[in-house]
Formats: sequence, C-alpha cells, structure tokens
Amino acid sequence: MAGRGFMQWAANCRTVRLDVGVATSEIIVLGQTLCTDLSSITPESTVTFHTVVGHEGDITVSVKNESPEGMGKDGGVTKMVAYISVATHSSKIDDKEVNFLFVDKSGDTIGVATLRMTAFYMSLDVDCDRDGVVEKNNPNKGSWQWGPDGHGAILLVNNDCDDYLLEMDPEHKNSKIDGPFDLEDMSRMAVRVRGPETLPEDCRLRMWVRPDDKERLGIFNLSDIEMLDELGNKHIIGPKAGYLAQVSYDLMMVRRDEGETLFAVEGLKYPDKDFNGTLRIHLSLLKNVTVPVFEDTVIFRMAPWIMTPNTLEPIEAFTCQMKKSENLDFINDFKKVVEAAGIKVNIVPPYENRGDRWMQDEIELGYSELPGKKPMPVVLDSPRDRGLQKFPKGKLLGPDFGYVTRYDQNEFVNSLDSFGNLEVSPPVKVDGRTYPMGRILLGSAFPTTKYGRRMMRVVRDFLYAQQVQPPVELFSDWLGVGHIDEFMTFVPAAGGKGFRLLLASPSACYNLLRKLKNDGHGDVLCFEGKTRSGESAERSISDLLDDSNLKAESLQCQNDIDWNRDVMKRELGLDEGDIIDLPQLFQLEDGKGAGAYFPDMVNMIVLGKQLGIPKPFGPMIDGACAFETNVRSLLEPLGLTCHFVNDWDSYHLLLGEVHCGSNTRRKPFDFKWWNMKF
Amino acid sequence: MAGRGFMQWAANCRTVRLDVGVATSEIIVLGQTLCTDLSSITPESTVTFHTVVGHEGDITVSVKNESPEGMGKDGGVTKMVAYISVATHSSKIDDKEVNFLFVDKSGDTIGVATLRMTAFYMSLDVDCDRDGVVEKNNPNKGSWQWGPDGHGAILLVNNDCDDYLLEMDPEHKNSKIDGPFDLEDMSRMAVRVRGPETLPEDCRLRMWVRPDDKERLGIFNLSDIEMLDELGNKHIIGPKAGYLAQVSYDLMMVRRDEGETLFAVEGLKYPDKDFNGTLRIHLSLLKNVTVPVFEDTVIFRMAPWIMTPNTLEPIEAFTCQMKKSENLDFINDFKKVVEAAGIKVNIVPPYENRGDRWMQDEIELGYSELPGKKPMPVVLDSPRDRGLQKFPKGKLLGPDFGYVTRYDQNEFVNSLDSFGNLEVSPPVKVDGRTYPMGRILLGSAFPTTKYGRRMMRVVRDFLYAQQVQPPVELFSDWLGVGHIDEFMTFVPAAGGKGFRLLLASPSACYNLLRKLKNDGHGDVLCFEGKTRSGESAERSISDLLDDSNLKAESLQCQNDIDWNRDVMKRELGLDEGDIIDLPQLFQLEDGKGAGAYFPDMVNMIVLGKQLGIPKPFGPMIDGACAFETNVRSLLEPLGLTCHFVNDWDSYHLLLGEVHCGSNTRRKPFDFKWWNMKF
Repeated sequence: MAGRGFMQWAANCRTVRLDVGVATSEIIVLGQTLCTDLSSITPESTVTFHTVVGHEGDITVSVKNESPEGMGKDGGVTKMVAYISVATHSSKIDDKEVNFLFVDKSGDTIGVATLRMTAFYMSLDVDCDRDGVVEKNNPNKGSWQWGPDGHGAILLVNNDCDDYLLEMDPEHKNSKIDGPFDLEDMSRMAVRVRGPETLPEDCRLRMWVRPDDKERLGIFNLSDIEMLDELGNKHIIGPKAGYLAQVSYDLMMVRRDEGETLFAVEGLKYPDKDFNGTLRIHLSLLKNVTVPVFEDTVIFRMAPWIMTPNTLEPIEAFTCQMKKSENLDFINDFKKVVEAAGIKVNIVPPYENRGDRWMQDEIELGYSELPGKKPMPVVLDSPRDRGLQKFPKGKLLGPDFGYVTRYDQNEFVNSLDSFGNLEVSPPVKVDGRTYPMGRILLGSAFPTTKYGRRMMRVVRDFLYAQQVQPPVELFSDWLGVGHIDEFMTFVPAAGGKGFRLLLASPSACYNLLRKLKNDGHGDVLCFEGKTRSGESAERSISDLLDDSNLKAESLQCQNDIDWNRDVMKRELGLDEGDIIDLPQLFQLEDGKGAGAYFPDMVNMIVLGKQLGIPKPFGPMIDGACAFETNVRSLLEPLGLTCHFVNDWDSYHLLLGEVHCGSNTRRKPFDFKWWNMKF
Repeated sequence: MAGRGFMQWAANCRTVRLDVGVATSEIIVLGQTLCTDLSSITPESTVTFHTVVGHEGDITVSVKNESPEGMGKDGGVTKMVAYISVATHSSKIDDKEVNFLFVDKSGDTIGVATLRMTAFYMSLDVDCDRDGVVEKNNPNKGSWQWGPDGHGAILLVNNDCDDYLLEMDPEHKNSKIDGPFDLEDMSRMAVRVRGPETLPEDCRLRMWVRPDDKERLGIFNLSDIEMLDELGNKHIIGPKAGYLAQVSYDLMMVRRDEGETLFAVEGLKYPDKDFNGTLRIHLSLLKNVTVPVFEDTVIFRMAPWIMTPNTLEPIEAFTCQMKKSENLDFINDFKKVVEAAGIKVNIVPPYENRGDRWMQDEIELGYSELPGKKPMPVVLDSPRDRGLQKFPKGKLLGPDFGYVTRYDQNEFVNSLDSFGNLEVSPPVKVDGRTYPMGRILLGSAFPTTKYGRRMMRVVRDFLYAQQVQPPVELFSDWLGVGHIDEFMTFVPAAGGKGFRLLLASPSACYNLLRKLKNDGHGDVLCFEGKTRSGESAERSISDLLDDSNLKAESLQCQNDIDWNRDVMKRELGLDEGDIIDLPQLFQLEDGKGAGAYFPDMVNMIVLGKQLGIPKPFGPMIDGACAFETNVRSLLEPLGLTCHFVNDWDSYHLLLGEVHCGSNTRRKPFDFKWWNMKF
C-alpha cells in the first residue's frame, strides 16, 4: 500500500553538462552513473565521434540513441546520450578523464568535450546482520525485514540511567555519553570514505535525518573524543544538539586511505502512534553546499518494549509493607511463596510506598533487547498517581534499568489505567498465525458505550505500537475496580499449550456449593471468624445457596466473564480444554459495579510452579477448606504448588488481593523479537 | 504488519450456561454457534446422555470431549462441550428448543437441561460489488480490496453545496439532507432483520462507529422521513447527531417478515495523515443493554481527491481581468488559445479577484468519484490568502462542485504553498509499478536544509494520504517564487508514452544563441521594444552570450533543474527521449533566488493540443522570433499547436507567466481509482 514513502533525494544516474572546447570537472561516486546529452553539443558538420578514456578498465562509457518509446527518428527528438561509470571495486581514486572527439567527414577532429572526474567511495554502514559487526556497504542496509531470515539494524531506547552518581536524569534526555556503560546501550554506525584529501571547496559531506526523527535518536561522533576519559560529548544530531545541528551534521574527514569514522547511535523514543519504529539516517555528498549529488541511507528499527507472561521464570518479587504491621500476616505468607520459588523478595517500606499497597497497579515490568546484548529491564510507569508514584523512578530506574511512561494531562486518570488491568498471554498460535511472545491483554469498556471507562488513550496507543505482542481488548468495565486480573490469570502447565487460562467462575462455585450441600454439608460455615464492615462475614453453605440476590448478581458476572472467555478463545486460539474455572462469587454494589464476594482466587501471584493464592476461607470439610481442596484438585495435577495467602483484612476488604498487592520481574523470552514474522 | 486492528466485540462462538432442571432462554443469531460445558452440570451417577432437538433439520448439535492439546484424560481436566447452531438458510425463526437428558446406569433419566432459543437473522449490508445494489450479506462486506477484481463499498466526501438557495454552508458540515441531489451524493446501507416482533426487553439492536470515525461520516435513517417533502432530517450518527447519539443509534424495528431499513451514508473527511480512508460501521445485538452477543460489520473507503494532468482534455479555463484594462492584451491572446481548444473561458472580474491575477496559485481543480455516478469536481483551496481568497468558496462551491482546504494556523504561509507549485504527471509506469493516474509533483526545499521553504505540512499530508497519485517531492526552493511550474510542464504527444516532459533549459538556450551568432546574427536584438524597471530590456545576441554573470547564474539554475530531471527520470520512469529542453535563461536576485530572465516558455497553459506559451520576444531572424521557431520545431512535430501569448508587462515583470495567471478544469480519468492495484 502506498504511504508516505522514503524519497531518495539524489538519483543514482546523474545528469551532467559538457561543452565542446571545455574541460568540465565533476564528482563521481563509485557505483553511480553520470549521464550527458551529446547531441545538444555536437558540432553541425560532425559525421562520427570517438571516445577516449583515461584509466581504461575501471571506467565504462556507453553511448545510446534515445527516442520516445516505440518511435524512430520521426518522433521529433532523438538524443545521443553517453553514460559514464566507474567500477565500484576501483581502487584508484585519482582524477579520471573521458574525452569525446567529434570528427567531420574529412576525418578531422573539429571539437573535443572533456569530462574530468573526481572519484569518491562513500558508504554509511550499520550492523544489519545483527552479528555485532558493522558490515561494509551491506546491500540490505537501507531496508528492514522481520523474521529469522530477516535483516536490519536495531536501536535500543537508552532510557536507563548510567549517570546515577553525578546527575539523576530520569527523563533520559541528556545528550552526553555517561561513561562506558552508557555507550554499551548504543548501536554503532560507520562512515567510510575514500577520496581526495580535502573535499572540493563547494562540497559538503552531510549526515542528516528527517525533522520528525530528531527527537527519536541521538548520534555521537566517537572519533571526536577520548571517550572513557572525557565525558560530556554532545549529540551531533538529536534533540539537544543545538539549534543549528539538530537534523544535520557536516563531516570533515575524507582520507585517501579508506577512512572509517565511528558513530554511536542511541534511541530516545519507543514506537508510538505517530512513529512506526523505523528511523533512517542519510549521508549526502552536496555540491554548491546544498545540492545532493550522491546519497547513502541506513535504516534502524527501535527495539520495542516487551511484557513478560506468567509462564516466564520469575527473577524477583515486590510487595509493600504497611505502617503499624498492618499487613504483617500477609507479608509472612507472601515470603513463603517467594522462598519456595527461590527468588529474591523486595519489601517496599512505608516511607517509600507512602501508604499505597497496590504494587501491581503502579508499574508493569518489561524489557527491551538489542542483538548480542543482555536484555535491559524497563519499567512502564502507569498514569495512576498514588503513594507509589515515586517508586519506579526513584528505586527502579538506574544503571541497566530503564524507565518509560505515558501520560496525557488532557485525560482524567481512572481505575482502568492501573496495571492490574494490563497483562500478557503466554505464546499462542491462532488460525496459523503465531504470537511467539503472546498478546497483550487490557480491560476496556465496550466501544458501544460512550460513557464507559477505558485505559488512557496514549497508553493504549503505546501498547499497540510495540507490534510484537498485538493487544486484545477485554471487557472489564463491569467490575467496580475494573481490572482484568480480577477474573483471569495464566499458569504454566505441563502438556497442552504449556499453560492454562484460569477464570473466576460463579457457575463453578454454585456447582461446588450444591454438591457440598447434597453431600450433607449444608450447615457448614464459610468465612469462619471473618468480618466485613465490622460485622461477621460467616454464612452457611445453605444460606449462600438460598441468597437469590447474590446468585443473580454472580450469574450476571458469569455472563460478563463468559463474554471475555469467548473473546480469548477466539483471539488466543484457546479450546475449552485450555481453560479452568475456579470457584468464585461476585456481588454488585449499587452504582459501583461488581467485586469479589470472598478472596478472589484467580488474583494470585504466579512464580514458576509456586502459586500464591488468596486464601478463600471456604467451608471446612474433613479438616480442609473445600474451596482450597477444589482448587488444589484442579491445579496440582498440572505440577503446580498452591500456597494460600491470608489477605482478607489487609487486601480483600480494600477490594484487592495478592496479585494487586505484588509485582514480579521475570526472565525475558528466549525468543528474539526481531525473529518474529508478520 | 500488525497494527491497531479491528476488534470484533462479539465472538461467533458464544458460551452459554445451562443447568439441570432448568429451562434456559438464549438468543441465537443464524450463523452463530452456542457453546455449553455439559460436564460441569452432569449429575454424578450419569453414565450416558441423549440430546432431543426440536425442529430437527435446521438445528445442529454436536458434543465433543475437550482436553488440553495432545493430552488424554490425565491432563487434569476433560470437558464435555456441546455446540449448537441453526442453519443460516433456516426460514423458521420461531423459538427453538434443545434438551439434554442425563441417564443413569439403570436407564432412568435423572436430569434434563433445556435450552430455549430465540432465533434472529441479522445483516448490515452495503454495495460492496460497486454495482449500485446493496447485496444481501455479501461475504466481502467486512473487507476492502483494491483492483479490478477487488471489492468494497465507497463513500463520497459530500463537500458540495446542494442547499445554495436556502443556506450557504461552505463548511459542508450540516447534518441535513439538502434535497434529492444531496441524497445522490450519499451511499446506501441496509439493515435486514428477521426475528420476533419485538426485541426481548433487555436487548438492543445498536448501530455504532468508533469515536474517531464520528467526525468522518454522517448516517441518515431513510425509513424515518418523507424525504423529498420534508427537509431537516438529522444524522443519526455523525458530528452533529447530538451529544448522546454521536457514535451509536438504537434501532427499533424488528419484523417477522424480513424487514429492510435503508440508510444513507455521507463522507465528511478525505483520507489524511491520521485517517487511512477506511471506515467501519457496526451493528450489534446487545444483551443486558450493553453486552454484545452478535455483531455485523461493514467497511467503506472514502473516495480520494484526484488531480488531473495536462494530458486530460480541458473542460473550461479560468483567468483574471485586472482593473483599467491592465491585462487586456493578455486576455485577448489567452481567449484565442481557449477558442482554438473549443472550450469555455471564465474571466474573473476585478471585483471578484480583488487585484489578484494568480489564478493558478489560489486553487487546484480535481475531482472525486463514486462507482456508477458522475464524478464530482472538487476544488482544493490553497492556504495562500490573497485577493482570490474568496473565489473558490464564493464562485466554485455549489451543487455538484465540492470544496476542500487544508490550513494550519501554527505555520506561516510561504510562496511554496501556492498551487503553481503543485502539479501531477500523466499516467506512468516505473520499474513494473503502474501509476494509472500519474504521480503528484510538488516543490520543496531539500530535507538537508533546516531553513528552506516547504509546502505547509497539512497540505502535503493531505496529498500523500489520497494514495492513488503518490507524490514526488521536487526541489523548487532555488527559485525566488519557488514554484515547479517555473521549470517544467507536461504536454500530450502522439507516440511514446503519450506525453513529453518539457524542461526549461539554459544550456539549450546558450546552444541556440551560439548557433545564431555563428550563423552571423550576433548583432540581432532580443526583447526588442521591451522594458524592465523603466529601462530598455533590449540586448543583442552577442551581448547576452558575453554576459558571464548571466551565464554563471543560468548554468547554476541548469544544475538545479538537472537535479529535478534526474529525480523525475527515476520516479516517473522517464528516458531522455521523453524529455524536451526549451530554451530559457534565469538570473539570480541577491537573497531572493532565481527567476526567468525572459518570459518563461514552459510556464504555458496546455488545453488539449493547443498550447498558450508566454511570448519570449527573442531575436527576429528571417521575420520570425528565433526562440518561437525553435520551440515550434520541437513541439509541432508532436501534433501540438503553439500560440504565443504576450504577458511581458502584465505577468512576466511581476514574476509570473501564462500558467501562473490561469487555471483549467479537466475531464476526469476514464480509469476508476478503485481499480488501482498496490
């Protein structure tokens, strides 16, 4: 499809004008062809002409008669046109000369037109084989192709902070190289030129980018500095490169021996709604200071921000400690799950969480990756602005830990902006199309409703623009809090697709309660010893089954969950066999939407095979909670271990659970995003 | 490539929940499948079960055991799932019933789960075969494909004014049907429904569009009004449809006989940077007022705005008459060209042009086209704001004559925004890719320069977004006025590609002058009797040849023109044989760029085979102007007639010529834009 395509601003076949009796000087770049109309300068009495070429062998001259297509001499105009080129392998870059001798019928030369060429070899080079080598004039350098057989250079958004001791620059907009580690985050680019020692006076060798791109990258000239000793080198092209040099930079070095000048390029912006992720850098040889006579172009693609599903191994877990030991029981249970998983736990203290326990909602932990380098963790900070607001910049951002956020001050933040409402599926295959890094899932209102809550547009735009985990929008606005982690999660599982989708299910809960009643346990109490709003929360199984309001509300929620089930079956290519229903009841609060009636078991933390599940406080049958027994019977055959975490007072009654109150950093995919096929 | 794709908000396979001992009522839409998990409700002592179906023949029930992929019963969960569907051809829309009977080992039925279905047939339909018929449930209606074998419905931007007697609405933003001619500019859409006489109480049949699209189209319900008698019908969806109904509309009509409700859809915005031209309209059947249980979607593409090259036949020509007979000589010459072409001439009087003679610069005359209808002329009004500013809205906009403009108040208007700087090539073929309606050409500064002049971004974005004539940006900033029509034009020509590119050429002019001098005419005066800045403009041929400043400036301009020549050869697939050089000299004015030294012959008006060429006032040799003789010798063999128009005082000295001072409306292409292949 035609779009706003790339326009090469210098043609590979360039018109030059000669004249009889004159020696014309022109630049020729190896690989380029010069084209000159001889008929317009041929003396009238000419009957034949000869071409005399200096440096035979590496100069090619061909002369053609050109008429309009399909027409002979009668077409009005037939031109005699000469094409001159120098072999690209030519090692001689000295001046080259071609003479056109016009001869009359008596054999006398009645005029000579001379073309003197100053030859250049020029190449702008990048690592488009993704092997760490800046190849020489790779024919693929001007295009970018996805897939294992693809090619194309890659940039990382350099949004970590390698200068943390000197100057905290969380906006990662500085235009300096913050030492060798900062340089590690940048890609290499080279200019290779062979030609006369100095450029002809009116010529320039100019590196440039389109104005739109100057905010998206920064280029450093590495030949210019003693890097490791002297910090403070400036972008030569980039947002802070000074008023004159923002989009272009004139290079000074041309050498007779093939000189190579090395550059470092850093990415500054992720793909987004107005940026498809590809960036072009041009090198032009200009005549008369402004007119391009040759141009070389390389293309980079910005590495996307990638999310990690529950099926990836955990590295570290996060949760918050509240003041006055308020959630100490929770933290003790939580630590046991993390210990079982054998990973590090980070307990964020009260002075850092400032009373905000919803660690899931403030951040999403992902990563970005360059070929041949260690992936860089990058935190996406939600537009949500509560106690934990300063945590991602203040505590996560640092050396090799990047930070990104999206926020639109013209929109109001709502509960669907929290990242409990942002998840990602494991890798899936749908109707022959593979999603090797899964699909992002986020909750929305239906598009049919004008007044529903949705995630902030700029955040959704950002997520869609990353391309490699194409989002699926689910319906979560029916919930009061409105987060998809209130009704779904994924767990790793032996066999099948390697995972199961767990869904909260009122139907499954009623089936279980009915069976327990039929088995004679109707009088057993659920939620024993628990309170809600200062009153006892205890209810017998029969009492729950007889509550027709609760049933009607729960089954309406089942309907909403089933709608999401159907969308996920279609968009993730799932069968019923891939889905497990966990017993759960929901209630509606007037005007506030639905919420879990007892601790919402799908709102679990998944750390490898260790699951930290909200403790449901179900009816005790034969010394065990019947809800826990049911869940164990569904999940333990998959090789999973269920830990039940008491969050009733400290999270459940505040409308959240274990998942809402925690976060997990996971290992990146083994799969490399640039190997994806579209 | 994955982008922000279309998300269908209702799955074709929908989960329903049954229960033993209960009759469950559900909606089923013909073509949709219901899916229910039987294992979760199967009584424990069941050993087998039976399905009893009412209306045998048009209901299909299949029951499957589903486990995770590649796993047997050991996979933890195996589900028994029933799939129920009603044949799409079913003529019976009455209630349908399926009973699932659970049987124990003694053969007794120990439970029955009943599914009662209310069946609907629903279809949202458009003319996607482009034959004037709104087909029934065409399988292609949800996609759009280019090319002669393509499909997809089309909308016209309804930007003419059919209400000119009652209310001039040049912003064409009204939400009314302005009579039958207005309705002619709209496309038809139908909703076809067969079902129970009234919708179930909590159901809605809702038509809706994405919020972004509500400014791009307007939908009228034609069943609602006595159209021809009663004006003032409102958009049901669209920008002025009222606060509540902007994006969605609830339909009331459902009939037992297949009812059809007709809608008219008008386009309101051309494709642009943020709008790829396709629009989706959805029809959803909602349960519980908000939850979609079925969805149908149609897609429209907005007809693009199309430019007409010089090779298309002219319909009418425009020029301005200045006060005090200032340009009477010009108008007399101009009229002769138009008369020879046999078309209408429009002379815009002083009170309408308000002293602005540059008719080419204010407007570009193009068209838009719907299948099966007469193409509609549409004027693109430039951001330029001089005397003719009110002309396009005041005089061109009207019934069947549309109006569009693009303007960004945050940018300054500069001379490159004038439409003498906007042309279009004839149809071309480049490296196997065809451009059956040519390519748009516009002049810019080089991207390597930060300070150059360019056409306003919003205008360029608009031009690129039309897709069917992919633009080529040329370099025109070297000219003082900066318009591409100062150095190039296209003429129709027998043979070859059917046209020639004419380029202004200092080299050709010097070759001609030298030849004339060699032939003994060195003393003949050029520009005889003409003045410039109050002084005589007369110069002999030898004098011109000896002027080394003029030569250096002209040859520098030749260099700039050659650059454009090379770009056009590459981007339009031209050979030297397709290009004709017309003699022309240029001079540089300090700090103001280049301008024609004598009337600029390529700045001609092309009306079929009749050319209105600025009269160059060259040296008179053998009773004829040698410049005219040269031009005739180049163009007349192509079947063209050269008329030389005296514009020296009235245009040339004001830095413009015939083309700048005129405009032409041409016949549309025979080629239909939707038949283009990408």
